[in-house]
Amino acid sequence: VNKSVAIVGASGYTGTELQRLLAQHAHLEATLLMRSRAARTDESGSTGVQPLDPARFEEVHGVFLCTPHGAASELAAAAVAAGKPVVDLSADFRLRDPKLFASTYGQEHRAPDLLRRAVYGLTEHNREAIAKATLVANPGCYPTSILLPLLPLLQQGLLDDTAPLIADSKSGVSGAGKQPNERTHFGNVHDNFLAYGIGTHRHAPEISQELGRAVVFTPHLLPTFRGILSTIYVTPSNGNRAETVRNCLHERYRSEPFVKVYQTGAPELHDVQRSNQCHISVHDSGPVVVIVSAIDNLVKGASGQALQNMNLLLGYDETEGLT
Amino acid sequence: VNKSVAIVGASGYTGTELQRLLAQHAHLEATLLMRSRAARTDESGSTGVQPLDPARFEEVHGVFLCTPHGAASELAAAAVAAGKPVVDLSADFRLRDPKLFASTYGQEHRAPDLLRRAVYGLTEHNREAIAKATLVANPGCYPTSILLPLLPLLQQGLLDDTAPLIADSKSGVSGAGKQPNERTHFGNVHDNFLAYGIGTHRHAPEISQELGRAVVFTPHLLPTFRGILSTIYVTPSNGNRAETVRNCLHERYRSEPFVKVYQTGAPELHDVQRSNQCHISVHDSGPVVVIVSAIDNLVKGASGQALQNMNLLLGYDETEGLT
Amino acid sequence: VNKSVAIVGASGYTGTELQRLLAQHAHLEATLLMRSRAARTDESGSTGVQPLDPARFEEVHGVFLCTPHGAASELAAAAVAAGKPVVDLSADFRLRDPKLFASTYGQEHRAPDLLRRAVYGLTEHNREAIAKATLVANPGCYPTSILLPLLPLLQQGLLDDTAPLIADSKSGVSGAGKQPNERTHFGNVHDNFLAYGIGTHRHAPEISQELGRAVVFTPHLLPTFRGILSTIYVTPSNGNRAETVRNCLHERYRSEPFVKVYQTGAPELHDVQRSNQCHISVHDSGPVVVIVSAIDNLVKGASGQALQNMNLLLGYDETEGLT
Amino acid sequence: VNKSVAIVGASGYTGTELQRLLAQHAHLEATLLMRSRAARTDESGSTGVQPLDPARFEEVHGVFLCTPHGAASELAAAAVAAGKPVVDLSADFRLRDPKLFASTYGQEHRAPDLLRRAVYGLTEHNREAIAKATLVANPGCYPTSILLPLLPLLQQGLLDDTAPLIADSKSGVSGAGKQPNERTHFGNVHDNFLAYGIGTHRHAPEISQELGRAVVFTPHLLPTFRGILSTIYVTPSNGNRAETVRNCLHERYRSEPFVKVYQTGAPELHDVQRSNQCHISVHDSGPVVVIVSAIDNLVKGASGQALQNMNLLLGYDETEGLT
Repeated sequence: VNKSVAIVGASGYTGTELQRLLAQHAHLEATLLMRSRAARTDESGSTGVQPLDPARFEEVHGVFLCTPHGAASELAAAAVAAGKPVVDLSADFRLRDPKLFASTYGQEHRAPDLLRRAVYGLTEHNREAIAKATLVANPGCYPTSILLPLLPLLQQGLLDDTAPLIADSKSGVSGAGKQPNERTHFGNVHDNFLAYGIGTHRHAPEISQELGRAVVFTPHLLPTFRGILSTIYVTPSNGNRAETVRNCLHERYRSEPFVKVYQTGAPELHDVQRSNQCHISVHDSGPVVVIVSAIDNLVKGASGQALQNMNLLLGYDETEGLT
Repeated sequence: VNKSVAIVGASGYTGTELQRLLAQHAHLEATLLMRSRAARTDESGSTGVQPLDPARFEEVHGVFLCTPHGAASELAAAAVAAGKPVVDLSADFRLRDPKLFASTYGQEHRAPDLLRRAVYGLTEHNREAIAKATLVANPGCYPTSILLPLLPLLQQGLLDDTAPLIADSKSGVSGAGKQPNERTHFGNVHDNFLAYGIGTHRHAPEISQELGRAVVFTPHLLPTFRGILSTIYVTPSNGNRAETVRNCLHERYRSEPFVKVYQTGAPELHDVQRSNQCHISVHDSGPVVVIVSAIDNLVKGASGQALQNMNLLLGYDETEGLT
Repeated sequence: VNKSVAIVGASGYTGTELQRLLAQHAHLEATLLMRSRAARTDESGSTGVQPLDPARFEEVHGVFLCTPHGAASELAAAAVAAGKPVVDLSADFRLRDPKLFASTYGQEHRAPDLLRRAVYGLTEHNREAIAKATLVANPGCYPTSILLPLLPLLQQGLLDDTAPLIADSKSGVSGAGKQPNERTHFGNVHDNFLAYGIGTHRHAPEISQELGRAVVFTPHLLPTFRGILSTIYVTPSNGNRAETVRNCLHERYRSEPFVKVYQTGAPELHDVQRSNQCHISVHDSGPVVVIVSAIDNLVKGASGQALQNMNLLLGYDETEGLT
Repeated sequence: VNKSVAIVGASGYTGTELQRLLAQHAHLEATLLMRSRAARTDESGSTGVQPLDPARFEEVHGVFLCTPHGAASELAAAAVAAGKPVVDLSADFRLRDPKLFASTYGQEHRAPDLLRRAVYGLTEHNREAIAKATLVANPGCYPTSILLPLLPLLQQGLLDDTAPLIADSKSGVSGAGKQPNERTHFGNVHDNFLAYGIGTHRHAPEISQELGRAVVFTPHLLPTFRGILSTIYVTPSNGNRAETVRNCLHERYRSEPFVKVYQTGAPELHDVQRSNQCHISVHDSGPVVVIVSAIDNLVKGASGQALQNMNLLLGYDETEGLT
């Protein structure tokens, strides 16, 4: 082991997943596990997870922020002030425009100056900037599953500008976090399925910002724990069909270790659960082309991609701890 | 009890569900339960389920066919010849064009003359014809969940003709039938989610036939037993938005006992499981309107609607056994 | 409809289940739905569920208490004072000894005088007393599944007094109630299984009281919503084996509408979910006899048996609303 | 990588799990994947899985047999004849008495001579014999979960000889294998729970053989994929209680890497899934002591323990590929 990292919010789902991944990392160790908030006298906390104390960022080489939205801004500022690279898994630095952040998340941004220095951490599309950054805004889980298949198509001009981009996404319950509430009660999830946040979900502005155009995004809640499967409907330009779209994606990702483009068949959640993979398939369906994209929301959609980014920040091979 | 019915294929999921519903019917009784096939000497069968014998249709007042596709045609012919009204839950009489049937189901239609007399049994949209019919083609489960919200919009000219109609549907496993196979193995369904038949599913021609225009249809398999939730993306004409669409559906279905249009919120599978209800909500989402439609695939998507239709055929109140 | 009832705690799982059952009752209607607690100004509550107001018990013919343990005592007293028969689904009146109640539930009993008048509502074993009672203590879910098979054996002297009675019980999550907490979070239940309260569960004293001897009771949490399956290990006296035990139970319950003793095979949760049935099988296994007992914890284990008891209290056929 | 192994039956659940584990092994590689049966011309098979050909055992250093019961005997003989160490995951060599094998599995043993040379592979209790063996009979999944907690207690004379040993075990569906059938159909497992093979399960003779005394064993089927939790009821001798039992187990396993004895709390399936761990807790419950034991049936209950044994056979550290 060569370097150490802190995880703030270590006992939540993404913090726990980071610990699982780091346990397999040859060079990085999670030496400092903190809660998301300062200590309360009445709480014990998970074993080994200590009260929040940003002054202790000095002890480590890098900081992962697995805190709720809004709480990460000042912690990121403290880490950057201490000269430590940060990967923020919250939404605080994903939206470049602080006004859009405020209208989307219902609160003023607490570190707008730092926001300008943040780099969006979709690793496969921003590798060089991430390696030079001090603060990486780790992408949302849904956006990761949607941007990976769509960005190359937009960059190659393969999509009709006038037809809507529609992403119908389905996620396991871990995306809703570890806090018990009505939505996460077994009785409301088991044997059930539902759409939520239709036309209003906070990940839509993030996806649109990165695509440079509007997206129609409908999230759904699956009775599973892990995984996101997005079914995406696009209209290619110039009469192109699935084959062209598939070839574009295959070409773009052929040397990427964590993206696989299928020649036949379509990915299932079982294909990607517990891995940092994004699996993509492309299909003709009448006048449109259907893209199926699957990730594990806790890995490639959160902690796995965060580690991919931290590897870049600290000079390690991007795949360390992830294969 | 006033009249009796036969159920052919009584031990499959839809046949069993029909028995459950008929047990609550004040006037109808399932007196004749048959297998889908003639007897084999080596099989015992479910209790009370007898070998197939179309000659015995004489004993009852109506016949439900819960057989595999292809097997229903000749049985329907036998029942009609015996003067008994038939509700066929298989796909044999859903597609009006025998050539389309042949290309979709990979076999020649075995009763093309009878096909001309079959009435499509989407009850809320074909009530009068059903009441006069002798043979009702009970709609597919996915088509039911998609046609109920879309037909009124097309009839009122509320949809842009040039934008694709996209139906992203998710079904519980019971839609795949009772036969054990790889798809229905617990190990392949539990904690999983997948799309299948993308651009090629047999229900797409049925939906398109009834809508009078093409549909983009993507079915998915949920790790639940019962229920279909369809998320449908439409582009209204003339700049109309969700409110107009919702009002149209609300107006159309306000006096229907089995269709409910939400003013707020969206239906979940839990809202409709084990009932004959179709619940519908309508939402703005950027340039499109999103419709969420939920049914129980075994009830409104199969046996419940079949009983609704048999009630009409035999002169009972349409809701008998269904509330 | 002839008579009306109140449900206090109408929006919890057992209160909701009671509403479902009463909707099918020919003579009883739930006209008064109340919360378990007095109104708070900041809460809306479920549709139609009103603030707690015991003075309104005057409006109805009977009262169901679906409140948390401890809260029912005073409500029962109010209902009895108003001359209304009560079925209490909480634990407040199950233990006859107020000291045992205090040590088991960690609070003094608030209505010890009334406790003396309460009748234990295991319907099949206490029918006459229930019919004459004003206050029925509805049995716990686990005890119902264990007492129904064991009581006849003890009454007939079929069990060895010196061998331990062991009940290994497994329950769906609905037994833990509607309140979101760590135990009911989907992430902690799905794909999991666990034992809890080993040697300390509050239902053990209730079971022992009714059996008249100690029981070894281990509850477990299943990743299902409804149902309890208890696997019970007994040692028959005088070298008797499963056949004698089975015959005893069969004889005892042959005319009971809600208890079924299997001649072959063993019950599964699927056999009893959503019904008021208790299904029982008996098997030899080396030196002991194994009894499998299955109920729906929300029906025969709670609201169904409560309605069975209310039917007796109000003079209706015991099976009304339950078949 | 230093040595290579063959896996016969590589596409079943245990064969697939072995491949997953071997992928993390520093010194062993699965170079030869075979089907359980000779080739049929009409089958394609999983990618990279070849027809059965025992002559090719020559190519590898060791052989894993993941075949159905009955099929392993002759394959084991072929491997031993080729001088290759074998770990057999089937039941063929677990019962030392060929007559008991015949009565339990309904077929004559096909290699009774070899049976005498087989060593029972419960690693923590047979390490030295395994290291010297050529043929290891890998224990059944249920027996592993029951023997690990009970063997030390019997060896120390801590259990009352006259009281029955009762093991109430619950397993995920993967124990039933990959073959689709009624038992493994999602519709029969999901939201269900059941006991099976009561008093007749084939693992009971195996457990009894290793314990040297009879066991009452009741297996159940959980609606999960992986994991076994056994709740075991014992009566200590000399008035001993849980503390003594716990201390005995803690002492016995304190230096074992794959067995953990809890000081407080009880293991859940989530604690052991995907690991080679057996977690054990001990509790007082009235006159008996309750032991809870949890393993992953595919890892410690099958492929993980098989790899543990192969590591011993080939001279590697026992934990290689398993941590």
